[in-house]
Amino acid sequence: MKTIHIGILGYGVVGTGVARLLKEKKQLLESRIGAALKLKTIADIDTTTDRGLDLGDTSLVSDANLIINDPQIDIIVETIGGETLAKKFILDALENQKHVVTANKALLASFGNDLVKVAGKNLVDLGFEASCGGCMPIIKSLRESLVANDIKSMSAILNGTCNYILTKISREGSGFEEALKHAQDLGYAEAEPSLDIDGFDTAHKLAILNSLAHGMEINLKDIHVEGIRNITPVDIEFARSFGYTIKLLAIGKIHDDYVEARVHPTMISGSNPLSHVEMSMNAIVIDADATGQTMLYGHGAGMMPTASAVLSDIADIARNIISGTKRRVPILGYPEDNIKPMPILPMDELYTRYYLRFEAQDHPGVLAKISGILGENNISIKSVHQKGRKTNGKVPVVMITHIAKEAWVQKALKQISKTDSVVGRPIVIRIEETDQE
Amino acid sequence: MKTIHIGILGYGVVGTGVARLLKEKKQLLESRIGAALKLKTIADIDTTTDRGLDLGDTSLVSDANLIINDPQIDIIVETIGGETLAKKFILDALENQKHVVTANKALLASFGNDLVKVAGKNLVDLGFEASCGGCMPIIKSLRESLVANDIKSMSAILNGTCNYILTKISREGSGFEEALKHAQDLGYAEAEPSLDIDGFDTAHKLAILNSLAHGMEINLKDIHVEGIRNITPVDIEFARSFGYTIKLLAIGKIHDDYVEARVHPTMISGSNPLSHVEMSMNAIVIDADATGQTMLYGHGAGMMPTASAVLSDIADIARNIISGTKRRVPILGYPEDNIKPMPILPMDELYTRYYLRFEAQDHPGVLAKISGILGENNISIKSVHQKGRKTNGKVPVVMITHIAKEAWVQKALKQISKTDSVVGRPIVIRIEETDQE
Repeated sequence: MKTIHIGILGYGVVGTGVARLLKEKKQLLESRIGAALKLKTIADIDTTTDRGLDLGDTSLVSDANLIINDPQIDIIVETIGGETLAKKFILDALENQKHVVTANKALLASFGNDLVKVAGKNLVDLGFEASCGGCMPIIKSLRESLVANDIKSMSAILNGTCNYILTKISREGSGFEEALKHAQDLGYAEAEPSLDIDGFDTAHKLAILNSLAHGMEINLKDIHVEGIRNITPVDIEFARSFGYTIKLLAIGKIHDDYVEARVHPTMISGSNPLSHVEMSMNAIVIDADATGQTMLYGHGAGMMPTASAVLSDIADIARNIISGTKRRVPILGYPEDNIKPMPILPMDELYTRYYLRFEAQDHPGVLAKISGILGENNISIKSVHQKGRKTNGKVPVVMITHIAKEAWVQKALKQISKTDSVVGRPIVIRIEETDQE
Repeated sequence: MKTIHIGILGYGVVGTGVARLLKEKKQLLESRIGAALKLKTIADIDTTTDRGLDLGDTSLVSDANLIINDPQIDIIVETIGGETLAKKFILDALENQKHVVTANKALLASFGNDLVKVAGKNLVDLGFEASCGGCMPIIKSLRESLVANDIKSMSAILNGTCNYILTKISREGSGFEEALKHAQDLGYAEAEPSLDIDGFDTAHKLAILNSLAHGMEINLKDIHVEGIRNITPVDIEFARSFGYTIKLLAIGKIHDDYVEARVHPTMISGSNPLSHVEMSMNAIVIDADATGQTMLYGHGAGMMPTASAVLSDIADIARNIISGTKRRVPILGYPEDNIKPMPILPMDELYTRYYLRFEAQDHPGVLAKISGILGENNISIKSVHQKGRKTNGKVPVVMITHIAKEAWVQKALKQISKTDSVVGRPIVIRIEETDQE
């Protein structure tokens, strides 16, 4: 039986999970793949902490180059994270003709196009199933299963921390800070939570998925990103009264010669399968022209779900090696020559529906003033909800609009904020309508 | 650019869908795969009916052997269905060293082990992504994505007709016959609906999925199968009052040296993601040891979703051909030598919870009689519900049991049926508990 040698860079949570699967599932993997996957070396600056795993004949070293330059090693798994060291190591590994597997969405979103080129030049594979949606087979589905489809749209919950916090606020009426603290205590959120709760992690994943779905270069910088810091129990309660749930969604849609790509809190109705995705679970709904609507659902993070996705990439590369082939499926789903830049719609140009909440002064004429300004800006109102809940002498006024242009809405809100009819910044949450059978 | 030649056997709904994708997505497929997929010939006994498709330079012939024996054709797609002609044609094609793609679950469930052996002997691939769950990538997920997991359990809605009927009964309170008629009028159910509504189609799919999940020979004959003919609005209403939904589930679970494999109407709670799967949609929840719970959701049937799955198999084989390899992934997920027979738990040995409904005589002592017999048979009752709805002077008595053995339940029900306390056959619906985050 052929032996394929593997090295892991980074012996943290994901690295430990990958090492554990390679050890504990040795027999299963051999039985399925028909080759032995030997974990030869792990590199980490910390070579002393006990990770609770018997490494057997695997070496634990502090110098990554002992893996990158090891002529025996076929596949290198990068689980260091971050964009500096990880980038250098991956580039060195690719230049050494090593196949690379990574879960590093931040790196792929920012430098993926370069990495893909270097992998192409060196005729090696670059696997990243674990970068988006954890153990859900999103990458494989877009690259292989949906091969005969034009992907019309994707909408997804791709950050478990945000979904956990939103679920907590929704179920318990707790404030954002309290829910975040709870998530941190349970290990669902980092001490420095910005990457998650400000939407950047979700945007990284959307940049990757858009590329795979549409054969476009990875484009992170033009994605509109808003996080969940401003979501309050009040808005969640209003949403519920209209039959909506608030989720942090990644939304990608194809148009004739551009794509829509945006990350923001979104109201969705109960008929949208994403509305049932709770706690730290992730899910993606893909609407493609032949399949119609499909959804993948699962754990988007965590040691073993992420490690499982890494192993699926390792198995794919191992199967290539024992079949005497490589680069059987293009890294981004299309051969590099067929991948083109594609513009992302400027956010101002977006047309969608809006939930607007104002803290209005409780005196006559205020509603007329607000709706007047909206009307002058071409925004038609579908419904107005003025409930008796006074907060500091102010009344929350909620409006649901018909489809309107983002630029109009932002302009109107600025004008409304300048009047003495409202206090503070209006809350804007976009509403996503989905066709559902 | 290399050209790969394809022949389709059967120009019905699925065959037309496959032909349409090969024609309409020609450019997309070439751009993704890097090879031309040329539909050379279609064979069908009906060569005259207009299928609304411009075949261009594709020949439409009545003799399947013109495809099977064409030395130029690389991949043969079987979309005839049934077990006689389709079996002969597939065997002939495999013996002629053609790669075969089929959606024929009935054939695979009954003769899949033989087909796999013949494909192995002739060193060709046999793709069947379209056989289970339509466009959901179940087969690819089990064979490739979950490669480092032990699959603990699968539960799935795999028949859109049944799910449509159950949704209709649930939403509208219509009777089974009325809902079936409605499904037939809309084309969701066949004129001869037994294959669907009696659960056989679901069992075919479960037999295939069990094999892939556990590396076992395909075993259809030992799967316990019950359909949905006896489901009434009364039971659906009771289920709802307990927080349950009734779905026709395929359930597969691994134990130490046997598997559980059963198809029957099942009560599931709202925390089970399958409870939100409505109308004709399909879904599978897979609980694996590394990933935890994942779900795939999508259209399980229909021309284009099925054709999309067929195309994913064609693309996989095409990528093998241009990579100079074949049989890169074993047909059943494990190399044939590693596939073993594995016994299925006899239904009598099952332990689960039960919903029991009796039409009880409305006189004193009846409840004591029923619960006495259950107690004598070791069955403990979790709750009893006796609602005032009299039907013909009878009162429906509903009991939810704790976990009990199927053999005990069946024995107790026989004894209860023989008393004069109840009228007619008691209704038994098994309850599936799922852990859900």
